Amino acid sequence: MDDITATAVGTPNIALVKYWGRRDAVLNLPMNSSFSLTLDESLRTTTSVMFSDSLAEDSLYVDGEIQNLNDPKNEKSAFAGKVIGILRSMSGVESKALVVSTNTFPKSAGFASSASGGAALAMAASEALGLKLDRRLLSIIARQISGSACRSVCGGFVVWKAGEKGDGTDSYAESIAPASHWPDVIDVIATISSAKKKISSSEGHTLTPKTSELYRARPGIAEEHVKRIIEAVRQKDFGTVAEITMKDSNSMHAVMLDSFPPITYLNDISRAVIYAIHELNNAEGTPIAAYTFDAGPNAHVITLKQHKNKVVSALRDIAGDGVVVAGLGEGPRLLSEKESLIKDGVPT
Amino acid sequence: MDDITATAVGTPNIALVKYWGRRDAVLNLPMNSSFSLTLDESLRTTTSVMFSDSLAEDSLYVDGEIQNLNDPKNEKSAFAGKVIGILRSMSGVESKALVVSTNTFPKSAGFASSASGGAALAMAASEALGLKLDRRLLSIIARQISGSACRSVCGGFVVWKAGEKGDGTDSYAESIAPASHWPDVIDVIATISSAKKKISSSEGHTLTPKTSELYRARPGIAEEHVKRIIEAVRQKDFGTVAEITMKDSNSMHAVMLDSFPPITYLNDISRAVIYAIHELNNAEGTPIAAYTFDAGPNAHVITLKQHKNKVVSALRDIAGDGVVVAGLGEGPRLLSEKESLIKDGVPT
Repeated sequence: MDDITATAVGTPNIALVKYWGRRDAVLNLPMNSSFSLTLDESLRTTTSVMFSDSLAEDSLYVDGEIQNLNDPKNEKSAFAGKVIGILRSMSGVESKALVVSTNTFPKSAGFASSASGGAALAMAASEALGLKLDRRLLSIIARQISGSACRSVCGGFVVWKAGEKGDGTDSYAESIAPASHWPDVIDVIATISSAKKKISSSEGHTLTPKTSELYRARPGIAEEHVKRIIEAVRQKDFGTVAEITMKDSNSMHAVMLDSFPPITYLNDISRAVIYAIHELNNAEGTPIAAYTFDAGPNAHVITLKQHKNKVVSALRDIAGDGVVVAGLGEGPRLLSEKESLIKDGVPT
Repeated sequence: MDDITATAVGTPNIALVKYWGRRDAVLNLPMNSSFSLTLDESLRTTTSVMFSDSLAEDSLYVDGEIQNLNDPKNEKSAFAGKVIGILRSMSGVESKALVVSTNTFPKSAGFASSASGGAALAMAASEALGLKLDRRLLSIIARQISGSACRSVCGGFVVWKAGEKGDGTDSYAESIAPASHWPDVIDVIATISSAKKKISSSEGHTLTPKTSELYRARPGIAEEHVKRIIEAVRQKDFGTVAEITMKDSNSMHAVMLDSFPPITYLNDISRAVIYAIHELNNAEGTPIAAYTFDAGPNAHVITLKQHKNKVVSALRDIAGDGVVVAGLGEGPRLLSEKESLIKDGVPT
């Protein structure tokens, strides 16, 4: 077989209605649907994949460093190995793969790259293997890397349907509107340093449904939030989008706190952001900004372009200079051979 | 009418299953039953009450300072006025009242005195008026000061039944076991300084049921916790008491966080206490201590006397020297005339 190579770029997304709690750990099937914004290439991961008979084994480079594929604790290599394995078996190609990935996230953003990297990898690898996969199938494959990667496969305003089937074939992401539907929406990201996580997201997805007594109400609440936010996005009703976004973030962090032992990602600086945004909205007399926190340290504040300066200034007062602004994007795309991170069969 | 005076001492309590959320704001009727430990006189409020025709108006002194009874925002005087009013109408006595109250809480404990003060006031005033009220009736009267005061009327291990009636006559506290049933139980209290509350408990009791979507599950969870903790106390099963105590505190703070705007009393130091107690219990291989947080800054850690030093030492590492230890007590009691805070009709 000839060497086959492809390159794609992917971007992160920010969930406005959160995924927290799995019904299946192997297939990564969620207890509830979620809703997100796919961000533009202000933050992006570029991934090149080569399949070649000349390779003796699979290997993965991230930001110039080779990853140990035999370390079961290395999430990056476990994720990449899983996607390559699925696509290889779909295509019938048996060659080993070289995966090279670089992130252009500002260092201060402190982002996890599993979403942008997962979306880019799924697209590049399926292209290299000649598989003609639509976004729905790509998202089902990326879902097995992480819930967030599943949503990053689509552009703009994205819903990830929980689905009901045991095999996960109805649990996929789709865009309900492209970024161009409402280009004023932006995400102002404030970096909040924090101690190392006491518990990983992966453990939390299992711990919370098992131990939180309040969690029994959560999946129904999230489904209702998804239904309402889709309608609000279609109407470009920012007030409703903002209220659901803040409530859903609080709801997820509440069931985390109700887990046993409790999971707490919000610290005193996060709380300061929360109160600052409520004060800003009160001062404006209408919601112009909405905070949302993932299972990590950064505060994301969703707002509209015309309010950018006010929001950035409020966040700088609390979080210092580590503030990044991203718009919405259309999801992953293929790059030309010229932009490949693999030249003559080796990482550039 | 001759001047009539009585004096009582009351103590605080710490709820292990929390009261958060009212079904009636005027009568202070709770959405769910709660469970508490009445503390001993390490922390106490002494209250003397005099009814006299020579008084031109009701007046209240707390820790030597006169309180403005015409200020609707002064909770202390509003509470006292309410109880005096109820008891006056029950007794038919029309004389004005002088109430003098002193707290002997260590300054560092930063305790609210509404529970200990409410219990002492209800007992002293009903004694002065010659009303022969049992603890159940006293607790119904004190409940109208604050939920916590209702429980401080009884000793040892106390349940406050939510009740179902609209008039509140079945919403009262009772002791399920005296302090002597399990005298090894202690409360190690760590003072955690915090910014001024953004929202009062009183506002929170209304805001949370109205705005938290997870709250719909909370009353049922709390009732189940009460049922299980009563059984565990009867069996002196500390492991179960500890687990329910920690879970219920987390559950209450979770629905607070899920309120809109969110209510957050736990700060980074509270979180450090939470993780330190989980680490201590893990190291011991069995729960020897349980944290619980009210709508305020202090961490209460319930443990047994034999583990006191370990717990105090863990808390000192986090909270510094502001650590106070209290045992369990038998609730309020009357003091002799010699101990009155009123001499010759005026505050001593």
